[in-house]
Amino acid sequence: MLFERVAVIGVGLIGGSFALALKQAGACAHVAGAGRNAANLRLARERGVIDSIAADAVAAAHGADLVLLAAPVAQFPRLLRDIAPVLGPKAVVTDGGSTKRDVIAAARQALGRRLAQFVPAHPIAGAEKSGAQAAQADLFRGKRVILTPLAENTESALKKVQEAWSACGARITRMDAGEHDAVLAAVSHLPHLAAFALVHDIAGRENAAQLFSFAAGGFRDFTRIASSHPEMWRDICLANRDRLLEELKAYRAALGALGKLLEAGDGVALERAFGEAREARNRWLAGEFES
Amino acid sequence: MLFERVAVIGVGLIGGSFALALKQAGACAHVAGAGRNAANLRLARERGVIDSIAADAVAAAHGADLVLLAAPVAQFPRLLRDIAPVLGPKAVVTDGGSTKRDVIAAARQALGRRLAQFVPAHPIAGAEKSGAQAAQADLFRGKRVILTPLAENTESALKKVQEAWSACGARITRMDAGEHDAVLAAVSHLPHLAAFALVHDIAGRENAAQLFSFAAGGFRDFTRIASSHPEMWRDICLANRDRLLEELKAYRAALGALGKLLEAGDGVALERAFGEAREARNRWLAGEFES
Repeated sequence: MLFERVAVIGVGLIGGSFALALKQAGACAHVAGAGRNAANLRLARERGVIDSIAADAVAAAHGADLVLLAAPVAQFPRLLRDIAPVLGPKAVVTDGGSTKRDVIAAARQALGRRLAQFVPAHPIAGAEKSGAQAAQADLFRGKRVILTPLAENTESALKKVQEAWSACGARITRMDAGEHDAVLAAVSHLPHLAAFALVHDIAGRENAAQLFSFAAGGFRDFTRIASSHPEMWRDICLANRDRLLEELKAYRAALGALGKLLEAGDGVALERAFGEAREARNRWLAGEFES
Repeated sequence: MLFERVAVIGVGLIGGSFALALKQAGACAHVAGAGRNAANLRLARERGVIDSIAADAVAAAHGADLVLLAAPVAQFPRLLRDIAPVLGPKAVVTDGGSTKRDVIAAARQALGRRLAQFVPAHPIAGAEKSGAQAAQADLFRGKRVILTPLAENTESALKKVQEAWSACGARITRMDAGEHDAVLAAVSHLPHLAAFALVHDIAGRENAAQLFSFAAGGFRDFTRIASSHPEMWRDICLANRDRLLEELKAYRAALGALGKLLEAGDGVALERAFGEAREARNRWLAGEFES
């Protein structure tokens, strides 16, 4: 048994799936869940995602040997401050936040002598679904989890957190937090913003109903992530604001460049750009960029 | 039997699926296929998508009572000019092009006394896959086909073309060609351009391999349509250039507006925009905009 008592703070898609995966792997004896939504916690309990409902994050973390923070990242400063006094010397803390520099800054502010026990993590797995209802034991199976360790982390804390994510079936990568935020801004945060922007623009038009009524499969997939959790994505966008604004600038420039080709009627260059995009995407799908 | 001899010019995803669907419905006796790619035509023949391979579009259309043009739209002017002389007085012609004003202009130029027999159509169904290999009998089942009839169309031509698409299982809508091109620019052509732009931008970066290696499900779906056929999409973009440039402008403005909120750190407005987008998309998924 890797862990006796696991505290999951925020029992949604990520937190709930983490709990289910650890249980399925036989890696923990008891999962205590905490969160803002009582109905969601009851559902988590009924589904066997968690074993007990804690009154709050502090009660959940009390006596836990592993704590997962899986709430929207804007809540991390308060949550870390709250749980710091009850963390034991052997407890380890990790998280599921999609941004890492802000989470680390919050931990440095809040955790004091427990800082070395916090190993930041980002599981590259998700869905537009949210809540304990969406949790599934195999969400992380074969998926990447990026650890962005602190210089202060002990080898033992690193090892424990790595074992927890490995028990969920994830493939572990380590990365600098700044690099993490830049990479994810490009391949995740910007696409989310871009999907929200498209749907929001269309939804606000006078003929929105007509437009939606002729939208088909391409639109459905392009905009799937616009059904993501608004608060969670607000927090991610704000937390990674500088990198995301850089990516937004690059994306608007890329759109502008294709627009110029279109204006000029340059079919040769348009077809080349489309072809290069298709080829790169197909190579990615074929696994050529897996490391 | 609705049709004795059907000519499919361009036996790809759309043309091949049209042929398979008519056959499955028992609506035609013989399908002759024509196209530029001999290997693709042989495959179509082997798969039973078409019954015979015609030497060219003229040979396919000769004696046909129904002709479907399903090549990239830039080829339509030549194809229409070529087949016009061999079209019989009772033959009807339709197409599967994603743009309609350009197709109608080409038909007006090319078809002469056969113009009234041409009923433009756009099946709102597709995939990022192409070629006869991708053809499937149920591609159009339950999907919309937009007809943009000409003032010159006879009732009998309209009826026959409508019957052909209905036999494929499609739901028929009629619309003005200009309205069609504006609607499709918003919900189809712009998303394709936007997906191509994102992948092309990332593929051109020094750290492209790293970026792709951390791209996950959200990226995969957002960019699915960037695996679409480059030549086909070059033609669509150029054919609908004015409308697409308007949509591109609107989209860049929508992105810019979210960027301004992000710069200002306006979490309330960001969350509201994301929430409105999610709600509209979920209403669309629930079928609320179906007419």
